[in-house]
Amino acid sequence: MATIKLTFPDGAVKEYEAGVKPIDVANQISKSLAKKSVSAKLDGHYVGMHDEIKHGGAFQLITTADAEAGDILRHSASHLLAQALKRLPKFAEMHFGVGPYIENGFYYDTDNGAGNQVSVEDFPEIEAMMHKIVKEDLPILSRKISRDEALKMFANDPYKIELIEDLPADEPITIAIQGDHIELDKGGLVPSTGWIKHFKLISVAGSYWRGKSDNPVMQRIYGTAFWKDSDLEADLQRRAEAKERDHRTIGRDLDLFFTSQEVGSGLPVWLPNGATIRRQVERYIVDKELENDYLHVYTPVLSNLNLYKTSGHWDHYRDDMFPPMDMGDGEFLELRPMNCPSHIMVYKHKPRSYRDLPMRIAELGMMHRYEKSGALTGLSRVREMTLNDGHTFVEPEKLEEEFKSILQMMMGVYEDFNITDYRFRLSYRDPENTDKYFDDDEMWEKSQAQLKRAMDDLKLDYYEAEGEAAFYGPKLDVQTKTALGGEETLSTIQLDFLLPDRFNLTYVGEDGQDNHRPVMLHRGIVGTMERFTAYLIEMYKGAFPTWLAPLQVQIIPVNLGAHGQYARKVQKQLQAAGLRAHVETKDAKMGYLIREAQTNKIPYTLVLGDDEIEGQTVTVRQYGQDQTKTMSLADFEGQVVADVSNYSREK
Amino acid sequence: MATIKLTFPDGAVKEYEAGVKPIDVANQISKSLAKKSVSAKLDGHYVGMHDEIKHGGAFQLITTADAEAGDILRHSASHLLAQALKRLPKFAEMHFGVGPYIENGFYYDTDNGAGNQVSVEDFPEIEAMMHKIVKEDLPILSRKISRDEALKMFANDPYKIELIEDLPADEPITIAIQGDHIELDKGGLVPSTGWIKHFKLISVAGSYWRGKSDNPVMQRIYGTAFWKDSDLEADLQRRAEAKERDHRTIGRDLDLFFTSQEVGSGLPVWLPNGATIRRQVERYIVDKELENDYLHVYTPVLSNLNLYKTSGHWDHYRDDMFPPMDMGDGEFLELRPMNCPSHIMVYKHKPRSYRDLPMRIAELGMMHRYEKSGALTGLSRVREMTLNDGHTFVEPEKLEEEFKSILQMMMGVYEDFNITDYRFRLSYRDPENTDKYFDDDEMWEKSQAQLKRAMDDLKLDYYEAEGEAAFYGPKLDVQTKTALGGEETLSTIQLDFLLPDRFNLTYVGEDGQDNHRPVMLHRGIVGTMERFTAYLIEMYKGAFPTWLAPLQVQIIPVNLGAHGQYARKVQKQLQAAGLRAHVETKDAKMGYLIREAQTNKIPYTLVLGDDEIEGQTVTVRQYGQDQTKTMSLADFEGQVVADVSNYSREK
Repeated sequence: MATIKLTFPDGAVKEYEAGVKPIDVANQISKSLAKKSVSAKLDGHYVGMHDEIKHGGAFQLITTADAEAGDILRHSASHLLAQALKRLPKFAEMHFGVGPYIENGFYYDTDNGAGNQVSVEDFPEIEAMMHKIVKEDLPILSRKISRDEALKMFANDPYKIELIEDLPADEPITIAIQGDHIELDKGGLVPSTGWIKHFKLISVAGSYWRGKSDNPVMQRIYGTAFWKDSDLEADLQRRAEAKERDHRTIGRDLDLFFTSQEVGSGLPVWLPNGATIRRQVERYIVDKELENDYLHVYTPVLSNLNLYKTSGHWDHYRDDMFPPMDMGDGEFLELRPMNCPSHIMVYKHKPRSYRDLPMRIAELGMMHRYEKSGALTGLSRVREMTLNDGHTFVEPEKLEEEFKSILQMMMGVYEDFNITDYRFRLSYRDPENTDKYFDDDEMWEKSQAQLKRAMDDLKLDYYEAEGEAAFYGPKLDVQTKTALGGEETLSTIQLDFLLPDRFNLTYVGEDGQDNHRPVMLHRGIVGTMERFTAYLIEMYKGAFPTWLAPLQVQIIPVNLGAHGQYARKVQKQLQAAGLRAHVETKDAKMGYLIREAQTNKIPYTLVLGDDEIEGQTVTVRQYGQDQTKTMSLADFEGQVVADVSNYSREK
Repeated sequence: MATIKLTFPDGAVKEYEAGVKPIDVANQISKSLAKKSVSAKLDGHYVGMHDEIKHGGAFQLITTADAEAGDILRHSASHLLAQALKRLPKFAEMHFGVGPYIENGFYYDTDNGAGNQVSVEDFPEIEAMMHKIVKEDLPILSRKISRDEALKMFANDPYKIELIEDLPADEPITIAIQGDHIELDKGGLVPSTGWIKHFKLISVAGSYWRGKSDNPVMQRIYGTAFWKDSDLEADLQRRAEAKERDHRTIGRDLDLFFTSQEVGSGLPVWLPNGATIRRQVERYIVDKELENDYLHVYTPVLSNLNLYKTSGHWDHYRDDMFPPMDMGDGEFLELRPMNCPSHIMVYKHKPRSYRDLPMRIAELGMMHRYEKSGALTGLSRVREMTLNDGHTFVEPEKLEEEFKSILQMMMGVYEDFNITDYRFRLSYRDPENTDKYFDDDEMWEKSQAQLKRAMDDLKLDYYEAEGEAAFYGPKLDVQTKTALGGEETLSTIQLDFLLPDRFNLTYVGEDGQDNHRPVMLHRGIVGTMERFTAYLIEMYKGAFPTWLAPLQVQIIPVNLGAHGQYARKVQKQLQAAGLRAHVETKDAKMGYLIREAQTNKIPYTLVLGDDEIEGQTVTVRQYGQDQTKTMSLADFEGQVVADVSNYSREK
């Protein structure tokens, strides 16, 4: 029998028979160590507690005391979830993507095809099945198999097949076996299902397979697990607090918007309060763009399908598009998935000269995306959206300059919205996978370098991400954190050398020749109204700055009979100054009305009684403050108007 | 042989054999009279020149000198058009509606089904065939036939069958025979096709069969005919002048919008200039509504099809709706044909109390109408439109008051737009045909009386039109004249007792009961952005008042090098005051640039040179005026700002 040497973290070297298991190694040291050992590592690679150690090397036992053990636990919990789902008849045909641990949690991406979509109502049933499998205490074992075996084993799992096929041909394939359940997995799992005791499913949300928007949307089921029940409870508490900031919760509490099956999935209805915020954002950004020499247009939501055949959307993006509509006379109309072809039509409407460039065409462009119903969430994942869209047509040699000017405008807008927590990402093509991109190496090299140089010139921090470019060119993404901890792209500037070709766009150059080709820059500043408003709701926790607040001034007469007339006079004067003011006429106690104004996060609450009438003053309470202040109506009006025109930035 | 007595207009009475033809009567008087006699009348009814006179009575020959003869000619020309169309293979299967004369012209409503739609490119071919039939000089004869014979004769003509079936059972049916062509016609036609020499086809446009929007859209082919070529030419000249005012012509000349097959039929693209006008109108009306306590919302363009099943649109309006889209999970989404169900969803979102009423929900609501491509015209007949829509939910006893307040707001808006040429129409149900309407006699009687009383209270002039009501209630229509002489409805206020029932809308009354049913008022003020802008373009002939003008101030430096800097300073100051100002940098002669500014109907043109820099003044030319005026920049700014805020009403 061959022997192997294991070197322990403290430098000690011990000899074992080849094939010894980590559980045996631990037991030899002490029973208590064995009891708390979750997994082992050999030369940095995981070895399960019940797997054989085939060769010598640096060896380490991971115990529940190690932070890493939490990741192992949550990773194992995701497998437990998948196993439980498969055992439930209504999810028996489910396909699975990946199921990793994340910070303080785990998820599994699932696809039940046309079958039942997972909803939170299913969680108790799924958790019960998970607990049953925990009781069964199934050992979790690791095995190496051949590629052919793997392809056969996962033949019914298209996502797993895709993962297997993407592995280099010579890479060994490892599976984890847990009773009747098999996972494609490299290890880092607890010894048996019995170890996973304190867990909870959290939520379900839509997610693109492998994060690519041209892939199918899967249902991502989130959960978490801890070693101790008290840790689990504390985590759930933290999540509940985050949920309070969730735009769906605030949206409901402040009457901002709602979604309902009756209206249609993924089609939010903006109630008057939410619509006011949106209208302010829309007017703000349109005015800002007009100031910056953008030409605003209105182009139709429907277009001839041929436009998207020419653009390539029909070939590359069809799964995200709505079904075309047969108009009965040979024409097919399509709900547009993107606004770019429409703006190209505006460009092409007349012959253009270099004098017309850069031509910046902008629109609040409504578009539609065919999302699976399971992927839809509040305002942040919808089927109908209005994008603050813009396309610049520019001479190639002016590209960098235009890019900079867009970026500067963008940062100014962020400042007005008080958005500071963002990072710039330069998204390049994947150098390992260049055939996935528009085929023009020189263009890619040059334009990626241009983006980088522009950022360096502006002395802006950024990070670079290979494989995140669009098909047709590199881009700059502005990455922000969502309230719930995720990262999302708030704005982008994309370089596009492809569409100008496909639509044969030209301009007359200074040389008088009409065969010059412009470059296109696609850009959103505030993105879609839906997602941006969701972002603002979460960022401000519903306490909007005065310029955005649905109601700016709540006016409460001490006694409606005695002070109602003065209250309405104050209201009229504020309204005449362009402010949103309301006189509360509800029959309720003063204290209740003041608390209600705070609950509704109204920036200013006025209380008006005899004293105020006599002095022609107002007594003001600002949102979040306890003390009140009495001032003349004119002073108050001036203060609020200044607050609005300054975007409440000094607040 | 029986004899009959004819009494002539001059009182003379002559005796003839029964069955004598007007042509013989004319010939007996004089050959020259016969030559210019177009038709005859017996006791006020037409008798064709070659038809038999069966009985005595008041007799009159109509000659080319009579004004009435022009109508007869043009009426005959419409038949000639129909006959020519039928002879052309591509229109051989065409169905025909009605083909009357109109002021200075005629039209024929045609429906070629799925076959070739008629376009102006077809006119030369059609006219050539008409000329051929003129050369054949086919006699035009009138015959009385039985109802059964008529139904057989027109069996292939569904529109004619509908007309025949609508005739009272005992009414005699008359046809006009013209060679191989037969018309359902009561007479008033020229003796033979050879009489129709000077004619021209003018245009083709969409038109609802019998003017009802729930009927199919037909292609209405317009033409005209005159006795003399010079009269025809003069008429065509007048039409050309009217065309100059046509919003499509002005829209092209001023770069306001365009339509193209490439983008899609009936889907106009608003170019920056047109979009500016639309944006002004949109912001104006939204602000006006907010001032008037409307709650503005954004609701989705797509909705679950079930909404329109509940509302009844799917049953009664389906032909005008786009095809539903199958979302693959049992849900069908529909491009909404109307916004009312969406606003009803907003109402239904929460329980409502009488304290919440009247609840006025408004939106710039985009909707889609499935029009036949042949019916589409510029901005005035489109497939995608955005309606300045509003729905008030009101207690039944407050209906009249709310109606009045809407009407007063509407008149204020008209005043701001300087619209004075309109008439109020109260549209009632057809008392002969009550089964076409929502079945509740008491409701109809009461609500029609309410409308009338409200109008009388406000001392407004109106006329009453039976049969023009909507299915669900009576309405007030504001009728305006289009530039091209037609009449169209600019705004409506509709009473609706049906949808609140269908959607089971309720509110809690003062009695605490939650089973009260509100009434709905549907209203548009400026109607759709598309049609209203078309109306404004034609009304203003493209010379928009300053507040709407795409560009308000054109700044022309005498010499770009010497005066460009000052020009830009002036521009900046005007822009800071919220005005739309542009510095012309084109390399062209001053005179040309000034003329161009006039052609583009820009309200103010500034010319800036040495004198203006020295005095820090501007030299101003207002649109349509020859003289210029020099004033300080501040005075000019003040003047234009006042002009804008006053909606240019004193201009």
